[in-house]
Amino acid sequence: MTGQRSDARRNRTHILAVAEAEVAARGAQASLEQIARVAGVGSATVRRHFPTRKALLEAVFQQRVHDLCERAHALRAEPDSRAALLEWLRELLAYSLAARGLADVLSYEPLRDEAADSSCAPALAAAGDLLLRRAVEDRTVRADTTIDDLLVLVIGIALATEDYTDPATRADRAFRLAVAGLGTDGS
Amino acid sequence: MTGQRSDARRNRTHILAVAEAEVAARGAQASLEQIARVAGVGSATVRRHFPTRKALLEAVFQQRVHDLCERAHALRAEPDSRAALLEWLRELLAYSLAARGLADVLSYEPLRDEAADSSCAPALAAAGDLLLRRAVEDRTVRADTTIDDLLVLVIGIALATEDYTDPATRADRAFRLAVAGLGTDGS
Repeated sequence: MTGQRSDARRNRTHILAVAEAEVAARGAQASLEQIARVAGVGSATVRRHFPTRKALLEAVFQQRVHDLCERAHALRAEPDSRAALLEWLRELLAYSLAARGLADVLSYEPLRDEAADSSCAPALAAAGDLLLRRAVEDRTVRADTTIDDLLVLVIGIALATEDYTDPATRADRAFRLAVAGLGTDGS
Repeated sequence: MTGQRSDARRNRTHILAVAEAEVAARGAQASLEQIARVAGVGSATVRRHFPTRKALLEAVFQQRVHDLCERAHALRAEPDSRAALLEWLRELLAYSLAARGLADVLSYEPLRDEAADSSCAPALAAAGDLLLRRAVEDRTVRADTTIDDLLVLVIGIALATEDYTDPATRADRAFRLAVAGLGTDGS
């Protein structure tokens, strides 16, 4: 590795550490100018490493998305396919509420992504889809359910409750309602 | 009315018109400084009329929230109480997708509101609750469902899909899933 390359890598790591702190404090709307200022670099340097806000946010949340994908794989060992799917969706909801900005990143449309290979939403959808397909095969979930529908619901619940004083309770109620459906007591 | 008062009112109307255009273009994150600049007033003048971003956004969406409340009252004449509730929730979803920023305003927690009398979320919840209670009395919706749970779901679906190229289709799928629940084909 040349000195120049290792400088660039240190720069990237440093910008990312600053970005993590800013996003944790301010969510997905964290100012890129502020990140550049705190990191002690110019805005152009930030843009060279992270061309878009989305690219920067995806780098910030890469480890969490990786963990959630690993959880999906681990939960395939759970004998109850429906329980495994619901548990994973609950963990995704909890992660989204704990990490401000993650739900924002995941609400970007995967298909509009210019750099699909680095995008975290498709990886997450693919991991969750393994659990959904198993539940559909077991006929514990309706066959026309798609992982994108489930992600819209879970990410939406996180976005709609993240500014509440007790997001976890409010989000849990809405999640249970969506799983049970707007039926009658008898259904 | 004194000349000063009528000046203040004209100022407020002018700032609000500029804010409507900016929010339509940029959503709830529209810059207050940019609104002041386009309106040709100082930031302090904007803050005197609208002390918080939330107050400004609520003024921008006041007519739409009023219309939705009127629709809830009108739908009480619909004989099928469940159909009336679902129709109103669908209209709320469509309004939220059509008016960028509305879902953001509605996702503020009503209880944290310092100026509850001017807040639009409680008015909307009260209007929707009339339809929900009728459906619960008719036993067409489970008794433990709350209007806040339903609003979290609908507003969440709007927030999670508003950046998609075809928000209406994606939102409609997620809404149907939440109404039907994550059940099996037979349930």
